[in-house]
Amino acid sequence: MIRFNSDYTEGCHPAILERLAATNMEQTGGYGMDEHCKHAAELIKEACSAPNASVHFLVGGTQTNVTVISSALKHYQGVITANSGHINVHETGALEACGHKCLVIDTPDGKLTAEQIAAYTDAHFADDSFEHTVQPKMVYLSNPTEVGTIYKKAELKAISDVCKARGLYLFLDGARLGYGLASRENDLSLADVAELTDVFYIGGTKVGALFGEAVVITNDALKTDFRYNIKQHGGMLAKGRLLGIQFETLFEEDRYMEISRHAARLAEKLKDELAAMGVTFMIDSPSNQQFPILPNTVLEKLGENYAFEFNKKIDDTHSAVRFCTSWATKEENIDALIADIKKLL
Amino acid sequence: MIRFNSDYTEGCHPAILERLAATNMEQTGGYGMDEHCKHAAELIKEACSAPNASVHFLVGGTQTNVTVISSALKHYQGVITANSGHINVHETGALEACGHKCLVIDTPDGKLTAEQIAAYTDAHFADDSFEHTVQPKMVYLSNPTEVGTIYKKAELKAISDVCKARGLYLFLDGARLGYGLASRENDLSLADVAELTDVFYIGGTKVGALFGEAVVITNDALKTDFRYNIKQHGGMLAKGRLLGIQFETLFEEDRYMEISRHAARLAEKLKDELAAMGVTFMIDSPSNQQFPILPNTVLEKLGENYAFEFNKKIDDTHSAVRFCTSWATKEENIDALIADIKKLL
Amino acid sequence: MIRFNSDYTEGCHPAILERLAATNMEQTGGYGMDEHCKHAAELIKEACSAPNASVHFLVGGTQTNVTVISSALKHYQGVITANSGHINVHETGALEACGHKCLVIDTPDGKLTAEQIAAYTDAHFADDSFEHTVQPKMVYLSNPTEVGTIYKKAELKAISDVCKARGLYLFLDGARLGYGLASRENDLSLADVAELTDVFYIGGTKVGALFGEAVVITNDALKTDFRYNIKQHGGMLAKGRLLGIQFETLFEEDRYMEISRHAARLAEKLKDELAAMGVTFMIDSPSNQQFPILPNTVLEKLGENYAFEFNKKIDDTHSAVRFCTSWATKEENIDALIADIKKLL
Amino acid sequence: MIRFNSDYTEGCHPAILERLAATNMEQTGGYGMDEHCKHAAELIKEACSAPNASVHFLVGGTQTNVTVISSALKHYQGVITANSGHINVHETGALEACGHKCLVIDTPDGKLTAEQIAAYTDAHFADDSFEHTVQPKMVYLSNPTEVGTIYKKAELKAISDVCKARGLYLFLDGARLGYGLASRENDLSLADVAELTDVFYIGGTKVGALFGEAVVITNDALKTDFRYNIKQHGGMLAKGRLLGIQFETLFEEDRYMEISRHAARLAEKLKDELAAMGVTFMIDSPSNQQFPILPNTVLEKLGENYAFEFNKKIDDTHSAVRFCTSWATKEENIDALIADIKKLL
Repeated sequence: MIRFNSDYTEGCHPAILERLAATNMEQTGGYGMDEHCKHAAELIKEACSAPNASVHFLVGGTQTNVTVISSALKHYQGVITANSGHINVHETGALEACGHKCLVIDTPDGKLTAEQIAAYTDAHFADDSFEHTVQPKMVYLSNPTEVGTIYKKAELKAISDVCKARGLYLFLDGARLGYGLASRENDLSLADVAELTDVFYIGGTKVGALFGEAVVITNDALKTDFRYNIKQHGGMLAKGRLLGIQFETLFEEDRYMEISRHAARLAEKLKDELAAMGVTFMIDSPSNQQFPILPNTVLEKLGENYAFEFNKKIDDTHSAVRFCTSWATKEENIDALIADIKKLL
Repeated sequence: MIRFNSDYTEGCHPAILERLAATNMEQTGGYGMDEHCKHAAELIKEACSAPNASVHFLVGGTQTNVTVISSALKHYQGVITANSGHINVHETGALEACGHKCLVIDTPDGKLTAEQIAAYTDAHFADDSFEHTVQPKMVYLSNPTEVGTIYKKAELKAISDVCKARGLYLFLDGARLGYGLASRENDLSLADVAELTDVFYIGGTKVGALFGEAVVITNDALKTDFRYNIKQHGGMLAKGRLLGIQFETLFEEDRYMEISRHAARLAEKLKDELAAMGVTFMIDSPSNQQFPILPNTVLEKLGENYAFEFNKKIDDTHSAVRFCTSWATKEENIDALIADIKKLL
Repeated sequence: MIRFNSDYTEGCHPAILERLAATNMEQTGGYGMDEHCKHAAELIKEACSAPNASVHFLVGGTQTNVTVISSALKHYQGVITANSGHINVHETGALEACGHKCLVIDTPDGKLTAEQIAAYTDAHFADDSFEHTVQPKMVYLSNPTEVGTIYKKAELKAISDVCKARGLYLFLDGARLGYGLASRENDLSLADVAELTDVFYIGGTKVGALFGEAVVITNDALKTDFRYNIKQHGGMLAKGRLLGIQFETLFEEDRYMEISRHAARLAEKLKDELAAMGVTFMIDSPSNQQFPILPNTVLEKLGENYAFEFNKKIDDTHSAVRFCTSWATKEENIDALIADIKKLL
Repeated sequence: MIRFNSDYTEGCHPAILERLAATNMEQTGGYGMDEHCKHAAELIKEACSAPNASVHFLVGGTQTNVTVISSALKHYQGVITANSGHINVHETGALEACGHKCLVIDTPDGKLTAEQIAAYTDAHFADDSFEHTVQPKMVYLSNPTEVGTIYKKAELKAISDVCKARGLYLFLDGARLGYGLASRENDLSLADVAELTDVFYIGGTKVGALFGEAVVITNDALKTDFRYNIKQHGGMLAKGRLLGIQFETLFEEDRYMEISRHAARLAEKLKDELAAMGVTFMIDSPSNQQFPILPNTVLEKLGENYAFEFNKKIDDTHSAVRFCTSWATKEENIDALIADIKKLL
């Protein structure tokens, strides 16, 4: 059984394991105040051309989303999100459990537009009884989105402008950020992301680390007291150095982008080859998640040797499924998958 | 600089690192549904003589406390805790952030008594306006406590009886459980803990793992839907197998207790040798945290070579400090510490 | 200026004021434990043919919704609601502030169907990763809905059956219940509502009282400890008797239905007369809220003498607006409104 | 049975009932945006010599406390309170249900001191691991306190200075404020309270109104968006004018202080007469709650004709009980009570 069902099926990039072993008996302070975290933060600020950013390391995505959003909002404020946003769908209401409403905008492709955000916010404040509804104060984007689509620089710039003009914080969930930046269709840099958002994070869990997300805060208002929020949300790892060590390793020798490019290239290969066979897709994803529509009979056969995720019934005989590539995907396995699909079609 | 300031200054037991390396390229499902987690759960149930228990793995202590407590309580219910309880003091109000009040009982030694719990609960229900106060529904103990004291079997049995008679859930925070069970003064077994509580956890972070806490639920009412709670509190690690692998390693070949005994023995050595020098202690701790009272002048000198935690001012010239041992403590370092204190006194 | 913009523009039915004056210097216990509350509860149970129901009095609708819903749900559970549901739109996220997500189903007319509820719930439990999403546990209906539509008995029965089969609590928000029951299209009785739901409330604020909502709980599981929840949500009025006195007055001599019929009749008159003029409606509402579509020029003129609520832009020259009748509406004012619209069209 | 068990046993001052009747059929806007609320706010600002204050009307005390405190705090911040503070004891954890911890300071008499507040706050920030504990950001005082004691101007000034110096908001719960200001021992004015605090409220429920608390915000930072918070906490009364009308009536013709003086005088009479008989008190209360210590045998007899609140067992044969006076207390009843106690002693 070869697994393409998610981008977290293996452990971590070997260089990380080596570093963990090499540092294992070092004695350090706890809770992210050690030299490895400090060094990793420096490397990330450099990679983002954001020398004044504040960088923090958390364990997982749900935790990071909740910590960042709730640290920015007052009780009566909410966060604008696409209906497909991870915070709205797949976090068991973690954000609501912290008291905040997702202000949902329907989108066909997981991406919000500057126009939608402007319209939503303007409608709120134009309403006579605006105090009876949750005040929008933050915008949550994921890039790549949950369906693999990515924001172009012009799109992100437009959203950023709308947010600034309306006093909204812009937060970008980068759980798969590397796989977006490495896409052949991407025109964003880490520095762009840092410049255009108020806060974002660089996902480690899905991009080579055992676990870990690096939060980069560029807006001073959001920097204050952030560590209290981490602790309150259970995100302050006792052995915080484990996060520092992992991100040090990822941000040395361009490893983060190198492994992202690997996954991106294999996803593009899969996409191109399937398209060449005439396969259509649920969505035109330029990143490491691909959603081909295949006959159920083919999928059943394929399921004997490959793990993938069922995504959506298309009609009585076809379904959309998800294949993910990652830092760990072997090219031979992608080749085998392509060959087997070809055979079955 | 030799660190005794906490029991999480190093990485993890070498056997865990080896196992992580050996399994690194295995492909598994996520979120704790893999074979390693399954196996680790079996080992733990066996160690607890609790074949019907439900075992879950979370990342850290604060997260675990909040997840367990909030999963058990309705909105208007609270948890009885010693004033020194970790949930009341050192979790940045994580429990309150989830809506629940700590019902605090003052204790001199970090330990609650059956009598205190009975009196508190009975007073609540005897009050005419009981609906105006938070209803006690759970008791939170830590064993060892935050000041190193431990519960004897008879004490835990008495508390358990009081809880059963009053419909209170009994939850034991075992962040340092191994170090308590390995104490020469201990008469509790893992099986006793499982039998006498409704839910407890076995700490990994401080006892040999990189991170991780194993929650053991024996009360059926608390088993239902527990994984929703884990996810909502950000505790469902994507690569859940990392937790399974660590606890497999700890619960094979008696490793968990072996490394606990190591730490306990070194703490006892430190305690005995200091006592022999005439040093007194802030509290008579039988476990891996020791709180000697030393002259400030000695502490200042000592601080040049050793890290320890300031705990409490005793008088103008003396302070209580904390030294921790752990799985990683080297005997030669304890010996050096003892010798240096002797010299300085 | 004659106000039709809401159904709470006046004080209360004169009989209530008289009763408040007559009882003013009585001395009673507080917090809803007095004889007036007891008596009012008896009258309501009788009116509902629900002798075993538990009846509680709260101050306002938002408070009541939050109290009822959060008393029924565990932290990881949510409530299914129409997108237009009051809890989802007009309560400033009060429910989320208590930790619970609105599980939103889009509806054109404010009404949920049994099929929608079944499909939503079944899809949740059919999903492999169901623990990553909020568990549906309650259904929230409003009757009449926020756009004036009402549930027929067969519809409510079907919803009730779906809920029972899936272990969902059914909660009916009856802020305007009287105006629904008094509609010429209604075939529900108070006893039906009590029988088919687990908990509902009878609105007083909009139906003759100064303020107050009477919660009727028929499901035993929801009765336990309900008063703790009331207190926690700030709904336990110190002088609770004020609620008892008001509901006593409303449920004596059939007053609640009498004043509801008055409002219903006047709304029907308005509806019929406008329809007769050829006016169309945003929604076909059979209750006390009417949403005619009128030319903006007419509305502007009309606004000089009448207050009404803007509801929705229909096209560049037409808008839907809301006119409400209530217990306090004078027939002469409805007649004047009809005549003026006729003149302006 | 004559009731002295609380200060909310009757309805309201007759002038309020008259005003409610006189305005009953007026049509007004809802949610506190009507002319009565506007006028009442003007009267209160004048009485407080605080022309720039923002005044809001809420229904009850618990609701007001939660709304004010949670509007001021970020998620990781808490409020310093005396252990006996209403928010800590008698609100069923309403504040924790909104996510905030009570930071409790033990006091013998219900009053916090400037020194305690300074010490608590300074200790927080001096601690190395301060981010692991809840950050103090607000101080909650009640005046009179829950045991009837009051703050002298110098005490409040000292507390205010400490708060300003440390960036803490000062919030005064004035549920019984009139009864404090009317005490013969009081040297505070409404203007002092407004000047020395950031936000406080003037209780109506216990001082002549049917219900209602008037929040006075003087600190600009706390004024922003306050109405969202009111709505979210269920405190935005649909017929908000009911609050405006009541406070208009109370703040015209010096009624609020007049009825407060009445209650204060009768409490002082009771206190003096009991003291003259040699009765001692649980606490030396200068306001409308008196806590005499009486033989249980006397209390049993007394209980046949009078309602009062049991407060505390003093020894096997004596208890402290609470007698309250209010705007509604009849002097003849106080005289009868005094005479009966005299007879029984």
